[in-house]
Amino acid sequence: MTIQLHTDERVDYVAGGKLKVIQSPHVFSFSIDAVLLARFVHVPIQKGAMLDLCSGNGIIPLILSERSKASIIGVEIQERLYDMAERNALLNKKTEQISFVHSDLNALPNSIKGITYDVVTCNPPYFETVTEKEKNQNLHLAIARHEMYCTLEDVIRVSSQLVKDKGKVALVHRPERLASMMTLMRHYKIEPKRVQFIHPKQGKDANIVLLEGIKASKPGLICLPPLMVYNNEGVYTEEFRKVYEGR
Amino acid sequence: MTIQLHTDERVDYVAGGKLKVIQSPHVFSFSIDAVLLARFVHVPIQKGAMLDLCSGNGIIPLILSERSKASIIGVEIQERLYDMAERNALLNKKTEQISFVHSDLNALPNSIKGITYDVVTCNPPYFETVTEKEKNQNLHLAIARHEMYCTLEDVIRVSSQLVKDKGKVALVHRPERLASMMTLMRHYKIEPKRVQFIHPKQGKDANIVLLEGIKASKPGLICLPPLMVYNNEGVYTEEFRKVYEGR
Repeated sequence: MTIQLHTDERVDYVAGGKLKVIQSPHVFSFSIDAVLLARFVHVPIQKGAMLDLCSGNGIIPLILSERSKASIIGVEIQERLYDMAERNALLNKKTEQISFVHSDLNALPNSIKGITYDVVTCNPPYFETVTEKEKNQNLHLAIARHEMYCTLEDVIRVSSQLVKDKGKVALVHRPERLASMMTLMRHYKIEPKRVQFIHPKQGKDANIVLLEGIKASKPGLICLPPLMVYNNEGVYTEEFRKVYEGR
Repeated sequence: MTIQLHTDERVDYVAGGKLKVIQSPHVFSFSIDAVLLARFVHVPIQKGAMLDLCSGNGIIPLILSERSKASIIGVEIQERLYDMAERNALLNKKTEQISFVHSDLNALPNSIKGITYDVVTCNPPYFETVTEKEKNQNLHLAIARHEMYCTLEDVIRVSSQLVKDKGKVALVHRPERLASMMTLMRHYKIEPKRVQFIHPKQGKDANIVLLEGIKASKPGLICLPPLMVYNNEGVYTEEFRKVYEGR
């Protein structure tokens, strides 16, 4: 079986070379944010069910599949990205473990809504508003980056509906939104339990936050050691590479 | 004028030797948490009014007075600590700028409630519950450390009532309570705007969090670079000493 690549697509290697990922700068390239989330979240090792919302080209399910034998479903609203995610599962021979669903997360089919999950992950669109110019320039990127089809509240509400009691919901976002993330999690009965901040380098404000909550759990947050991406020479720190490559 | 010391009291130097602080291991010793909060909060430089709740021996007002010419009021529920705070203001010749009030923060006199403040600070009791043993062993420390006379919600509700619109409310606490701090701040119209985590050393979870909110402000949180207290040799890091000593 050959897997077709569109002319604007390329194949990159992640997870220390173990995974091949089709992406396209024109419609979707994964960010370090997604990789860090897939490394950060607590997963069941041997069995269970995990759900990834706003799945894009499927980078998070792919990495999760290296960490867990649980079944994984990715949900993506954009048909072009859903198709890319399907081909990524094929390319990595993961179709037994990973499947993708082309759906708006606010209108999930019963096949997805009928089960509850041990883990729900999401790397949602970060920006609340979008300009006409951004939409006209590149609608694919505009949808992935801006809250056009789903808000942070949608993500957290749907996650809460679909996760088991004591199951985990893990999100990556900009620190700017952390108060909203925590307030919304509490509102939807997901208790924030683990947070980690990613700083571009020592002495700089954080630009990424990873947050994991547990459904129907008691309060009590742990703040993990921070992660610095670059050292003073502008190259990845050893600690970042360890996490990023999954060593 | 001589300032009387009780037999269990001693005078320590803080802020690089600029301030003298009476304290007693039997009733109250300030922690690095209070010093860090007094360094962290944004203050008006030339004028204004600041309020410190759960003031203890007055360490926070003393440090704030080195950073600002604003008037400062400290509120303390324990008479023994209130008296120590008064003597600390005298000892440092700060009675023009700093005054203390002996009061429960849930029953503040009109002289305090009648004004609104540019800044409200608080290093509240950290623990939600107290055992009979802890109360019997040392009631002074039990009151300072446990939510016996005021809860986190009391602190945030009263802070919100007393701070001006666009004024600042800054708290120090354990990271375990951060989700509650943020949720309660939002509830009482204080928007979390700046957060900093203090880690005992590199690679360890944070054990202190500093959080500043602004009354009636828009969302948008900044996460400052983390502060490590000790290096691998177990001595204070240079960055910590800089902050702690106010250099």
